Amino acid sequence: MPSFVQLVSVDCPKPSLQDNTGDIDRLKKNVTEKCGNVVLVPFGAMTRVAKAFRQADFNGYAVLNDCGSHYELVDFFAEQPVILPSIALDLGTTHLEASLLDLLTGDVLRQANIANGQIEFGTDILTRIHFAATDGGLSTLQKAVVSCINELVEQLAGQEGIAPVDIRALAISGNTTMVHFLLGVDPATLCREPYIPLINSPDVCHGIDLQLGVDDWAPVWIMPSVGSYFGGDLISGIIASGLDQQSGTSMLIDVGTNAEVVLGNGEWLIACAGAAGPALEGGIAKMGMRAGPGAIDRVRIDPESGQVSYQTLGDQKPKGLCGSGIIDLVAALYLSQMIDVRGKFQKKFAGDRLMDGPEGPAFIVVDGSEAADNQPVTFTQVDLDAMMRSKAAMYSILTTLIAQVGLGFEDLERIFVAGSFGKHIDPRQAITLGMMPDLPLDIFQPIGNSSLAGAEEVLRSRQARKRCLELPNKITYLELNVNQEFMIRFSGCRFIPHTDPSLFPSVPIFSE
Amino acid sequence: MPSFVQLVSVDCPKPSLQDNTGDIDRLKKNVTEKCGNVVLVPFGAMTRVAKAFRQADFNGYAVLNDCGSHYELVDFFAEQPVILPSIALDLGTTHLEASLLDLLTGDVLRQANIANGQIEFGTDILTRIHFAATDGGLSTLQKAVVSCINELVEQLAGQEGIAPVDIRALAISGNTTMVHFLLGVDPATLCREPYIPLINSPDVCHGIDLQLGVDDWAPVWIMPSVGSYFGGDLISGIIASGLDQQSGTSMLIDVGTNAEVVLGNGEWLIACAGAAGPALEGGIAKMGMRAGPGAIDRVRIDPESGQVSYQTLGDQKPKGLCGSGIIDLVAALYLSQMIDVRGKFQKKFAGDRLMDGPEGPAFIVVDGSEAADNQPVTFTQVDLDAMMRSKAAMYSILTTLIAQVGLGFEDLERIFVAGSFGKHIDPRQAITLGMMPDLPLDIFQPIGNSSLAGAEEVLRSRQARKRCLELPNKITYLELNVNQEFMIRFSGCRFIPHTDPSLFPSVPIFSE
Repeated sequence: MPSFVQLVSVDCPKPSLQDNTGDIDRLKKNVTEKCGNVVLVPFGAMTRVAKAFRQADFNGYAVLNDCGSHYELVDFFAEQPVILPSIALDLGTTHLEASLLDLLTGDVLRQANIANGQIEFGTDILTRIHFAATDGGLSTLQKAVVSCINELVEQLAGQEGIAPVDIRALAISGNTTMVHFLLGVDPATLCREPYIPLINSPDVCHGIDLQLGVDDWAPVWIMPSVGSYFGGDLISGIIASGLDQQSGTSMLIDVGTNAEVVLGNGEWLIACAGAAGPALEGGIAKMGMRAGPGAIDRVRIDPESGQVSYQTLGDQKPKGLCGSGIIDLVAALYLSQMIDVRGKFQKKFAGDRLMDGPEGPAFIVVDGSEAADNQPVTFTQVDLDAMMRSKAAMYSILTTLIAQVGLGFEDLERIFVAGSFGKHIDPRQAITLGMMPDLPLDIFQPIGNSSLAGAEEVLRSRQARKRCLELPNKITYLELNVNQEFMIRFSGCRFIPHTDPSLFPSVPIFSE
Repeated sequence: MPSFVQLVSVDCPKPSLQDNTGDIDRLKKNVTEKCGNVVLVPFGAMTRVAKAFRQADFNGYAVLNDCGSHYELVDFFAEQPVILPSIALDLGTTHLEASLLDLLTGDVLRQANIANGQIEFGTDILTRIHFAATDGGLSTLQKAVVSCINELVEQLAGQEGIAPVDIRALAISGNTTMVHFLLGVDPATLCREPYIPLINSPDVCHGIDLQLGVDDWAPVWIMPSVGSYFGGDLISGIIASGLDQQSGTSMLIDVGTNAEVVLGNGEWLIACAGAAGPALEGGIAKMGMRAGPGAIDRVRIDPESGQVSYQTLGDQKPKGLCGSGIIDLVAALYLSQMIDVRGKFQKKFAGDRLMDGPEGPAFIVVDGSEAADNQPVTFTQVDLDAMMRSKAAMYSILTTLIAQVGLGFEDLERIFVAGSFGKHIDPRQAITLGMMPDLPLDIFQPIGNSSLAGAEEVLRSRQARKRCLELPNKITYLELNVNQEFMIRFSGCRFIPHTDPSLFPSVPIFSE
């Protein structure tokens, strides 16, 4: 599985009157014989390659970028290096997450993350797209994200005791819009029907093209996207989960700004995306927050006493609720009958924990005295309504997708759940809410940041790079915005667990 | 014979909700299907390609650079252009000569030339190589030649009524050192044994890499060289003459700073170079000059009366002697017995036309009263000695080369004589001097500036580009500096026509 950048051992005969080939030609000939593909030397790398090759007395290691159709020879080492550092990057709308990966071994050495500096110009993608249309806006957004990447790279390199310019390759995975911003290409057509990207699948470019602080000739792999609403981050997820290589049928669920779902196997793939995300990520609830220190990620309510117990990340005083905390909370509220099947608070059962707030009823999850900054953690009817819509959207997406291919959930071998959502969610509670199908719990498999993991895989393996380029052509994309069945299903999902409880035999139903 | 840059007609289905491929991907897919090879879009060209493609409503003409192993898609035209301009350039040490060529038809529209601005930093190549080693020297030389190319391009474009940025491709042919200067790569190893270029065969680069005033993404073809003393200009000559494609064996003689000679046919090629040039180009004689207005290019002496007649280029008053003028003059001096077989002036026959100058005897070719600025045109014994060495070197080169392959001059189908030397020289007089072999005159064929003609051919034809890349591997280079036979032959050639007059049956021999 040759990595994105490879070292080729070179032992050239020295130049003489009888063998007066030019330095670069001598090296190219030797390397071409060894790797059996076209080898090109980019104009800007020529001088340093020639210099290093001669200084090394014509023996050493050529640095080759594997561009698929050809190799690029971009540098020369006299000695075999101890590591060949590269960066895998998940380019998120709110956060960037990166791995420092050694191309010689494929090992991840370090990881780090940083907030996306573009937030200053718009918290959501649409605002940023509009900002990009203003004078100098696109370039500002590009600079902001490049500067974040450079900061992240500097941080990781510093920790490893290397220089940023020692980094020899990058693989970047992000949604379609984030990739447009990074490349500095106009995103205007992304958000207008028929939602067409300027580019889905960019050819390999270089560090210098993007003003990255890595080696100028480090190849940059950008994960291809399928469309405006199906980005390279999801292609990355497919690569990481191996969905496209399995004989059994599985599903991949990635909850970010949207809920993105892919269904398939080694033969076929179908995907869709829908706006189920924000509430599930803790992004919409008044006291919602990202999964981080002080976030409540587990909630239980004793049905007898009504006693609420919880757990926070980092064992800190509670500040708010992350996605999995919200799901747990709503499931617990249902199981203790404090909300009814329609997701409305029931004063009869909730009792004192329900107070009247400016936005109507609010449930006190944590009393002020126990909470960080003495601010009680509450969950309002408005939050609950948003959550009900999100869970309904999620289940509607899943059922619409699986019905489209004539299968049922029972046909699934596995459900991969990506991201921090997948990491923290308790599938049992998600089933109770009717958000996830009522399947044995071991079917659900959290796979972490699969956007990042897919980027790592691309750095390691030519096979993964090849899969990436083929995937967009193999995926059938189901547009939900114009899908009638989805709308019908959505209505049926607005009960807990569902208007048809037979779909969820494991969930208790309470008579009114 | 697809040209270096090609237009591909594109008629894409318009994007829709059902067909949401990105703009660039849509275009690439369509073009790839049509040209059956890998198509890459360079990072820097992406935005303009996408913009032009969309503005043209997804129909028009894609502009493709033919890079051999792959195509580069660099622009898009809504309408088929009337011409697709390109530049062929002969990058000479003293002069640059260029053609403006239409890639659609292959026709040369205009030609122009300009002095090489590097002369300011050294008239000869060795001085420039030393200058390149000084602080900032190489960059100064690069800028000087780039600025000359840009001036030439501007001039040609202006005459044609187009802008320099309309120029979509370049093919450049020059000697190995000139190419190093142009690329800004270190020429230091070129002039030290074992005389190794940094690069012989650069991959296609772009206008923007060299800061040329043409289109940024115009591909730049650099004629490959074989070694330090065998440059791309000679590869160009082989392409122009077709030496490498003929069943019969022919010879190509190119006289520049060196005399460069190639011998061969479709099966094999052997070449060598030697310092026979300067005297023949009029570069060394005191009153020598390039073939230009006021240069004497023809001289006859009436053996009876001793009367000198001559002709000048541009019918102007004589200023000096160009290469062919010198050859004519020396042959005429010999035929009128004014010099002997050793090339020494004979007062007995030269009479009054011989005067005593500060450097010894000098022959008055044109009296001051007839000459430009009233400066008599003279030819000294020193000039004569240099000419004798040059003609001896030339014939020795030719005989050494042909003997190397076990052939004789009678086996030659044709002798191509390149450059202004070939254009102006009278083969009859060159035979008289013993400089060229005593063959029927129709064997000699002047082919003009073959360095420029080869560059033109490369713009027109993929076949020619392929030949260029294969030629350096097919040519056996004979190093004369270490060749004993050459030194022995050289001694035998220092008589007129030769120490063995039987080699030149057509030349009269005078008894002392």
